[in-house]
Order: sequence, then structure tokens, then C-alpha cells
Amino acid sequence: MKDRISVEQAHRLINCGCVLLVTSAYQEKNNVMTLAWQTPISSESLLLGIAVNSTHYTAELINKSGEFALNVPGIEILEQVSECGRVSGRSVAKFEEINITPEPAQMLSAPLIKECLGHVECRVVEQYDLGDHTLYVGKVIAASARSDLFTSGRWNSSAVLVHHLGGSEYYASGDRKTV
Amino acid sequence: MKDRISVEQAHRLINCGCVLLVTSAYQEKNNVMTLAWQTPISSESLLLGIAVNSTHYTAELINKSGEFALNVPGIEILEQVSECGRVSGRSVAKFEEINITPEPAQMLSAPLIKECLGHVECRVVEQYDLGDHTLYVGKVIAASARSDLFTSGRWNSSAVLVHHLGGSEYYASGDRKTV
Repeated sequence: MKDRISVEQAHRLINCGCVLLVTSAYQEKNNVMTLAWQTPISSESLLLGIAVNSTHYTAELINKSGEFALNVPGIEILEQVSECGRVSGRSVAKFEEINITPEPAQMLSAPLIKECLGHVECRVVEQYDLGDHTLYVGKVIAASARSDLFTSGRWNSSAVLVHHLGGSEYYASGDRKTV
Repeated sequence: MKDRISVEQAHRLINCGCVLLVTSAYQEKNNVMTLAWQTPISSESLLLGIAVNSTHYTAELINKSGEFALNVPGIEILEQVSECGRVSGRSVAKFEEINITPEPAQMLSAPLIKECLGHVECRVVEQYDLGDHTLYVGKVIAASARSDLFTSGRWNSSAVLVHHLGGSEYYASGDRKTV
């Protein structure tokens, strides 16, 4: 089961720097892309940033719709995470070809990914063309997470997240430390 | 021993979303801050972004100097990582009070942190005030990393990096996966 998460807590869903699946949609088209280049930006009226290659299909859909969702995958769907990063949504309908399931967002037209552990829904408030990427600054308008894994405002030790090293290499989140 | 890393490979030092120690300096003053809000932005003329609370001492030093360095800590200095995030450089000379050692950068006036596993040296090319933070976009001008830990253009499994969950909770990088 997934609980709604307050906007104020939503940065804790991505704060650890984990890999995300970005969903976007415009009219009848939608897409999923794998993305490691993400960061929270501001805790006041929660803002975050994602850097998307300006030529990618996701950039086209975000430019047209002004919105995107971030979906936090667990290690159990690493195959799908990798696959979503290998193929373009211009040639592959990823929700049909890859083993992931769309579910409705709270506030956006873009679908969420049912198999993911948490979701952050954003409206674009600024965008900057920087080199070969566009940095989209999103204002968080809704968030949700698995109620058994996101507890006391953060991911607990049963949530195993994914980090990207480069190419086809990833690592899972490991031992917890409190200092 | 640390090797120089090409600018083209430098994003692999921070790509996994790990916690960083940001060093900055202006005239006789310097500072270290702990930072989780970071992302590569562009692979062409390598750009990256860090979001720094606009009231923090590090923001003041970066505003004055136009440069900063990112230092990648391993789990073995988690105590220092946490401590650097708890106190302000306005009241504490962190290089003296916290158990970390400055060493000269290749290109910047700001010191690097000897105990860290890798370093990225940046000049600020853009900055955006977004909510309560400033997003500094840095162009990478030099990078280096421990030659035993950063091999074949990425962190190998002997490098154990740090990720921030929130508050005083962190996790270490865990099991490697290739897909």
C-alpha cells in the first residue's frame, strides 16, 4: 500500500541520490526514462532539479506538458531500470514492451509506475539549457510512497534503492549508519 | 596515491549521488560543508550543479571566489562528514577543529581534503536563486581520485561511499550489480 507523503517530506524520497524513473506524457503519448542526474534544490516550496539530454523524447514531452513524475525503483526491478535507459521512447512504447505497469498520478496526466516504491509529482517552474542537457526545476505538488518502506519521514532499511556507477554498473543501498 | 582524472570522466566521481564535502575559500578564509544535493548536468564541457542554502558561509565564499571543489568521502570518515554538516564555518575553523587535512588543489585556491577518495574542481559559470537555496552550476576544470579505488573510469567495489537519508542517518554503498 502507498501513503501520501507531505510536500515538505518529499525531498527525502530522492535525497540519497538514487536512480529514478522519470515519467512524462503529452496527449496520447507517454514515456519512461532512467535518470541518475537529480537533486533536491530548495526546501522552501519544495523544488528539485533533473538534467535531461535535450534531444531525448522525455525532454520533448516535458517541454510540451510542463510536468513530470519521479518514480523511485527498488533493486528488484533493476532489469527494467536498465532497459528503460537503453531504448528510446520514440521507437519503443516502454509501458507495453518493458515489464512495468502504469498507474494514475494524484495530480498529473503522466502515469506513475506501480512497481516503484515512491513517487514525486512535479510542475516545471524553470528550465535552463546547459551544455547538452536541459535542467528542469520542478515544484513538488504531490508525493507518495510504500507505507511499509518509507516510515518516520525516510526510507527504512527494508527499502533497497539503486545507484548508478556508469554504463551497465549499479550498486544497491547498503549498511545503515547513524552518527 | 591519487591520479588525475580527465574532465570527461569526472562526472563518474559523483554520478552515484553520494554525499560530498564542498570546500571553498576566499582570501585567508576557507570552509568545508557537507552536501547531498548535487548532480552532474551536462557531459559536454562537463557541468555539474550543487544546491547550497543561500545564507550559509559556503555560499558567501563561493559568491566571492567564483569557485568550489567537491571532495568524495569514504565511509571511514563518516564522523567528520556528519560533523562538517552540523556546525557553521562562520563559528568553527573546520580544518582545525575537525579531523580533516587540507591539501592543495590542482587549479583552485580552495583546499582539497586529503582523506577524501576523489576531488572535482569547478569554476562557477551560472548561478540561480531558487527558493531558499542557490544552485551553482560549475564547470569542471580538474579532477583526481585514488588510483586504487577509481579504475576503468568508475569507482570499484573497494570504494565505499556515503549516502544521506535525512538527519543523522546515512547508508553506505552496497552490493554491485551489472545488468
